[in-house]
Amino acid sequence: MTEEHLIHTLEEVRRLLESGQRHQAAALIAPLLPPDQAEIFEDLTLDEQTQLLKLVEARQAANILEELDEDDAASLAETLDIDVLTQVLDEMEPDEAADLLGDLDPELRRQSLRQIADSVEIQSLLRYPDDTAGGLMTSEYYVFPEETQVGTIFEYIRSQPIKDEEIPYIYAIDEQGRLTGIARLADLIRAHPELPLLAIVDTQFVSIEANEDQEIAAQLLNRYDLLALPVLDGSGHLLGVITVDDAIAALEEEATEDIYKSAGIMATRDNQSVKSDLMVRGPIWRSWIVRIPFLLLTMIGGLLAGGVIGVFEEALETVVVLAFFIPVVMNMGGNSGTQSVGIFIRGQVLGQIDLNDFGKHLLREIGVGLGLGVILGLIAGIVATIWQGDVIIGLVVGLAIVCTTTLSTALGFLVPLLINKLGIDPAVASEPVITTINDFTGMLIYFLFASLFITTLR
Amino acid sequence: MTEEHLIHTLEEVRRLLESGQRHQAAALIAPLLPPDQAEIFEDLTLDEQTQLLKLVEARQAANILEELDEDDAASLAETLDIDVLTQVLDEMEPDEAADLLGDLDPELRRQSLRQIADSVEIQSLLRYPDDTAGGLMTSEYYVFPEETQVGTIFEYIRSQPIKDEEIPYIYAIDEQGRLTGIARLADLIRAHPELPLLAIVDTQFVSIEANEDQEIAAQLLNRYDLLALPVLDGSGHLLGVITVDDAIAALEEEATEDIYKSAGIMATRDNQSVKSDLMVRGPIWRSWIVRIPFLLLTMIGGLLAGGVIGVFEEALETVVVLAFFIPVVMNMGGNSGTQSVGIFIRGQVLGQIDLNDFGKHLLREIGVGLGLGVILGLIAGIVATIWQGDVIIGLVVGLAIVCTTTLSTALGFLVPLLINKLGIDPAVASEPVITTINDFTGMLIYFLFASLFITTLR
Repeated sequence: MTEEHLIHTLEEVRRLLESGQRHQAAALIAPLLPPDQAEIFEDLTLDEQTQLLKLVEARQAANILEELDEDDAASLAETLDIDVLTQVLDEMEPDEAADLLGDLDPELRRQSLRQIADSVEIQSLLRYPDDTAGGLMTSEYYVFPEETQVGTIFEYIRSQPIKDEEIPYIYAIDEQGRLTGIARLADLIRAHPELPLLAIVDTQFVSIEANEDQEIAAQLLNRYDLLALPVLDGSGHLLGVITVDDAIAALEEEATEDIYKSAGIMATRDNQSVKSDLMVRGPIWRSWIVRIPFLLLTMIGGLLAGGVIGVFEEALETVVVLAFFIPVVMNMGGNSGTQSVGIFIRGQVLGQIDLNDFGKHLLREIGVGLGLGVILGLIAGIVATIWQGDVIIGLVVGLAIVCTTTLSTALGFLVPLLINKLGIDPAVASEPVITTINDFTGMLIYFLFASLFITTLR
Repeated sequence: MTEEHLIHTLEEVRRLLESGQRHQAAALIAPLLPPDQAEIFEDLTLDEQTQLLKLVEARQAANILEELDEDDAASLAETLDIDVLTQVLDEMEPDEAADLLGDLDPELRRQSLRQIADSVEIQSLLRYPDDTAGGLMTSEYYVFPEETQVGTIFEYIRSQPIKDEEIPYIYAIDEQGRLTGIARLADLIRAHPELPLLAIVDTQFVSIEANEDQEIAAQLLNRYDLLALPVLDGSGHLLGVITVDDAIAALEEEATEDIYKSAGIMATRDNQSVKSDLMVRGPIWRSWIVRIPFLLLTMIGGLLAGGVIGVFEEALETVVVLAFFIPVVMNMGGNSGTQSVGIFIRGQVLGQIDLNDFGKHLLREIGVGLGLGVILGLIAGIVATIWQGDVIIGLVVGLAIVCTTTLSTALGFLVPLLINKLGIDPAVASEPVITTINDFTGMLIYFLFASLFITTLR
């Protein structure tokens, strides 16, 4: 469905709801695919959403709630009667139901858990934080004792109702519930009905522990080209399965977060601003709140750099021309540091940087920085010499750029590592910390060189 | 397989190859999963790779070549004898074989195409550029005329050899080859063997045209939680299928590119530096080449800003204190602009920003910038007043920050849009352009306010 068609449908739905024609509005969205229905819901008011959701079947309501942003879904779910809510929860995929329940008012969560059918399964999913492998897994997949015959498995699948999400793998477990192998549906179709499952499974499989980060799960699914990843406890018992679509969503979310963070946009704890499009459409004050912290930190950096300049006021009074090169020295230090931070953060996410071998990475980066510094320092030095007709000014500017660029490049690798060791997400904190340090050291180096040569200047 | 285990195996393989024990080295990597084998290959020299690849079976060699970086794979493939190469190409997935052939020496490509079995199929895949939906699709999937009986399909699947990648969907086409519906393997298992395929397929499906960008394909797979996406021509004929693992790889690649670009790292045309880990491990001169352009552009920005300061030399000589606040004014303008660029770029990738409604987005962003400017200008103005004991200095700094922040925030949205309209990738060019403009305008605004109040200052 095209974006234009969606916008047109949205306008029509709004018009119908305003004129009280609720059933016509519901009929209009009924034939759409769930993600498109959700997109229309996102642009309606909570009141309009409630009106509409009450008119659709539980299964369709479940699909819409699965696709909505977590906070929108929770707000909308809380407007439903408890009986309707439990029907909808029963229709949802267990992992999505658990996520929604986790966001509901605690009293409502208790009531719902008492009434829903898969209560035990969902309660076990609720145990894991949202951003872990356990938080991403579903409890709905095909698992059989390893000696089960292929024919029996076929009969079981035939007896089950059609589900929206059907994982095309069959998991084999031993008597203790430990995962022993995985078969694909296609392997099952090819196998003789009397063969035991164990005979057709692949016993060399990739898995993840429930407490691992969701990003690792996404990396494994990506690296090994899997459609689903089994989640195990420490002893190898099968706890659940992560489907590739949830992993992609997690990857998209992490990539967005990383890009926002590297642009100095601080996500709130619940990541509302990152998941939804609040940065583009939401209330303006929200944008202020997420953008101000980074700007304040770089303000401190700028003021500290100003403080350094203040210390050298006398030199500056003698040679006011020194002020002309403050921007270029700051830019070279700041931007080479930013590049290194970007390479470190992405290198770590993609597993290119081995933290056990960090010394080697750092040495290489210092070499890169020195080379960049010499090239840039040379160019800026020549420009400064020509512009001011003074080779000493050129020398001061050039030397300052060589040193700040080398230092900033090295710090761009070192600072994120240290921040990481402190247990803070380096993607959030590295940029402002690096900017502040680089502004400060850049001005210090520049004016130290200037003082060194001041007697020769003019 | 853990990273440590991999490193240990790599060292062992190297040691064996050095002492001429090639077969032992090949035996050591044989039991590993293909992505792990590829990771070991990546760290070997081309000569070592060639020695080892000759000793493994064609199927295993195919898997390794599929997993390697495109350029590494092409270099390695070119060392193989033409007969071995065609055997390996026959074992590769058609989409991967087409990608590899596209990177080979033209003469070798012609020779191989003459000898491989799926020559026609692969030649049709070669028609589409790598970064389009057509370039991402495979020709290996289950497709049947819509009237085919379920039982016949089962028999066909049983007759086929097991493949590494097996798409769990069955595609139904009409007499003209147009896609009419899609069934999942699980639906097939549930269906009566005498039913025609048309009776069990879902006729409401999502598809993409072959010439669309690969990023759109990835977005569709993600949005609609699909395991595979059919690729059609303009008249609805089924041309191929994109699997979710290729889409994830494309998404990862695009996200890495965006993060690198926003950090001012220019990828070369063939994206070598982005796809592989050359930024972390490769030759140092490569890092210089991709990092220098951005730094040079920001150097120009810094020097232009310096030129503006130079114009106001007289004001600066009278009130040297003005130099102390150059860093903070530059930081506020620069960083608020960078935030807006990040939001625009990501918003566009995620489809949050509607370019037809750009005026509204821009107005909102100006509002955000004005709010940020007032908050930051107030704080910096108060700090400057207290530090210098001079309310006029505070007023100049504060007003300059209000104006530059508002302007930079707006430009952070406007510049990427204009760059986009010029047909240039905004993720590459926006940052340096914005930085240059912001440095220049920031200093201009600051010193204009300063001159305005200069008679009152001191």
